Amino acid sequence: MELFTDEYFMRIAIREAEEAFEEEEVPIGAVVVMNNQVIARGHNRTEALNDATAHAEMQAITAASNHLNSKYLKNCTLYVTVEPCPMCAGAIAWAQLGTLVYGAEDPKKGYTTYCNTLLHPQTLVKKGILAEECQKLMKDFFRNKR
Amino acid sequence: MELFTDEYFMRIAIREAEEAFEEEEVPIGAVVVMNNQVIARGHNRTEALNDATAHAEMQAITAASNHLNSKYLKNCTLYVTVEPCPMCAGAIAWAQLGTLVYGAEDPKKGYTTYCNTLLHPQTLVKKGILAEECQKLMKDFFRNKR
Repeated sequence: MELFTDEYFMRIAIREAEEAFEEEEVPIGAVVVMNNQVIARGHNRTEALNDATAHAEMQAITAASNHLNSKYLKNCTLYVTVEPCPMCAGAIAWAQLGTLVYGAEDPKKGYTTYCNTLLHPQTLVKKGILAEECQKLMKDFFRNKR
Repeated sequence: MELFTDEYFMRIAIREAEEAFEEEEVPIGAVVVMNNQVIARGHNRTEALNDATAHAEMQAITAASNHLNSKYLKNCTLYVTVEPCPMCAGAIAWAQLGTLVYGAEDPKKGYTTYCNTLLHPQTLVKKGILAEECQKLMKDFFRNKR
């Protein structure tokens, strides 16, 4: 595995998603990277915390802000396995995130389904990184639920 | 002051906003009410926590969920002094909040500026409760900032 590619960091986010899966949480994982270093990670914990706001991205953004002692994440990249929802897109906007990289699209709850202006205009967006792998975790999870 | 009116609970939210003002935070306050009881309160703490996600509504929703041990707030009313942003509207949607009551509109960052489908379709919305008082705190705050 080549170091410091988008795929490299997305794999770390996928490992977070796998942890969520094992905990019977919707399997979405996220990491925040600055200068090629992972400074924060998180996965969905809405069930464990009984808190609808405890999405992977929210956990990772709060952890990154704690780490940097800054509410702005302008020089950071957030990798997340699935397209953020509007709540997380709003959080990404407030944090003025530098770059957002996501894996699978979410045609039901993804922010682009709602509105394309939710992110900060300076935030770069890349998508489709290891999308199949990210999507597979979600499919397996919801298949098991049925 | 009459008990258990929208104005009654909005005044408690305004007191939270005033606390934020004193702490040099954007003066927005929120309370969550169930069966005419305040079960959670919160105010903006983005500066104190260095966390762009620490809005009044997020604090109050997380606190209410902790209190009820439930990620759903279907039988709850959230009172917030200013129209929620898309992040908070998204959180309100995930929590399937029963009723949202807000004071002042926010034509710049309010969720209705972005998109009208961010809330859960079952959530009732009332607005304009003590709007002038809620708005005045914001105006005073930003006037002092200049």
